[in-house]
Amino acid sequence: MTLERRTLYHFPLCPFSRKVRLFLYEKGIPFGLVHELPWQRREGVLKLNPIGDLPILVEPDGSVITQHNAICEYLNELTPVNNLLGDTPKWRAEIRRITGWFDSSFYMDVFKPLVGERVVKALRTGLMPNSMMIRAARDNLKSYLKYIEWMAAHRPYLGGKSLSMADLAVAAHLSVLDYLGEISWENYPEMKLWYSKIKSRPAFSSLLQDKIAGIMPSEMYTNLDF
Amino acid sequence: MTLERRTLYHFPLCPFSRKVRLFLYEKGIPFGLVHELPWQRREGVLKLNPIGDLPILVEPDGSVITQHNAICEYLNELTPVNNLLGDTPKWRAEIRRITGWFDSSFYMDVFKPLVGERVVKALRTGLMPNSMMIRAARDNLKSYLKYIEWMAAHRPYLGGKSLSMADLAVAAHLSVLDYLGEISWENYPEMKLWYSKIKSRPAFSSLLQDKIAGIMPSEMYTNLDF
Repeated sequence: MTLERRTLYHFPLCPFSRKVRLFLYEKGIPFGLVHELPWQRREGVLKLNPIGDLPILVEPDGSVITQHNAICEYLNELTPVNNLLGDTPKWRAEIRRITGWFDSSFYMDVFKPLVGERVVKALRTGLMPNSMMIRAARDNLKSYLKYIEWMAAHRPYLGGKSLSMADLAVAAHLSVLDYLGEISWENYPEMKLWYSKIKSRPAFSSLLQDKIAGIMPSEMYTNLDF
Repeated sequence: MTLERRTLYHFPLCPFSRKVRLFLYEKGIPFGLVHELPWQRREGVLKLNPIGDLPILVEPDGSVITQHNAICEYLNELTPVNNLLGDTPKWRAEIRRITGWFDSSFYMDVFKPLVGERVVKALRTGLMPNSMMIRAARDNLKSYLKYIEWMAAHRPYLGGKSLSMADLAVAAHLSVLDYLGEISWENYPEMKLWYSKIKSRPAFSSLLQDKIAGIMPSEMYTNLDF
């Protein structure tokens, strides 16, 4: 007989799945992983979440929690150990601001067009990427990296004085782009220092072992002294 | 001498601005409104929020809170009066799930293409709307309305047994579409009952007075017995 445990249904290229994985590891909450391809809309997934979005967290009691932000807030409420949301209302507002901004604007301006064209389109349809969309996304990426560089130069962690959901959200996005070799780390020294700090955390090691079929990770991806 | 008070910089067509306005009214927190056109990227706005996104909340002490979700969570933490986030971790997860889903997926699938093409494009550029984008957004709208109809049939409020952020987020989106006459209420009787309940709340009356230059509201918009 096996005890039921937490299970996360995830897609390794999904930045929201990655954020929740990091969140679970940092909180020290044990869980199992089930790998899904979101566009397959598998029946087992739709039963858990009729909307079909990943990630999906299934609790030991069988209850289902979906939507990445709702999952993170829920996990942080479950246990006060390793609080990832700051200690004051204003600090929490800053952490949620950065997280929400990356998970909406960065995702739409950079992540979705870049990863969608370079990887997901090829995996799903075998079609060629749209180079204009990729170029626009790379231009947008630069503005965001400049902003991260500024934050990293002014604060020990992006959300403030200690590790928070903001670091995990931003690192989740960047880690996929890094896999694809899209980040010119040498142009952003403060951001690079911050990222190497996050990347060296035990919580990150599972992400570094992810492999995407047909695509080799960049040389930097698993290197902790990149 | 006037006392500093809370100020919300908003754009009446922005569903995130509307959600935060409703949140402030429901919490009973007094505030002043400053009307902005987001695409003008006015210097005074960029000083408060270099990213330029609306809404922006300026606190009585001058501190600035941005990003709609961060603002709502912050306001709910400020005072326990009229809690809009549920009483248990799982209930809060459900409220945040619905809110996050509408503010990301509904916004991208329906709101942005529909309101962007029908209104914002005309206001900004005077160009004709793209009818294919509008048609696709209207198709998407139907799936979401069916889901709201299902929720409204099964619960007194969308997030559970009492009013929550989920109702305010969904109503904020729908209220703009209703202004534009995009909602066929007669096809969704349970949703209509839910919306008329939300619309009749004192908090909603300010939204119903909004006027968009050059566009008359639909007949239904201000009618409480629609």
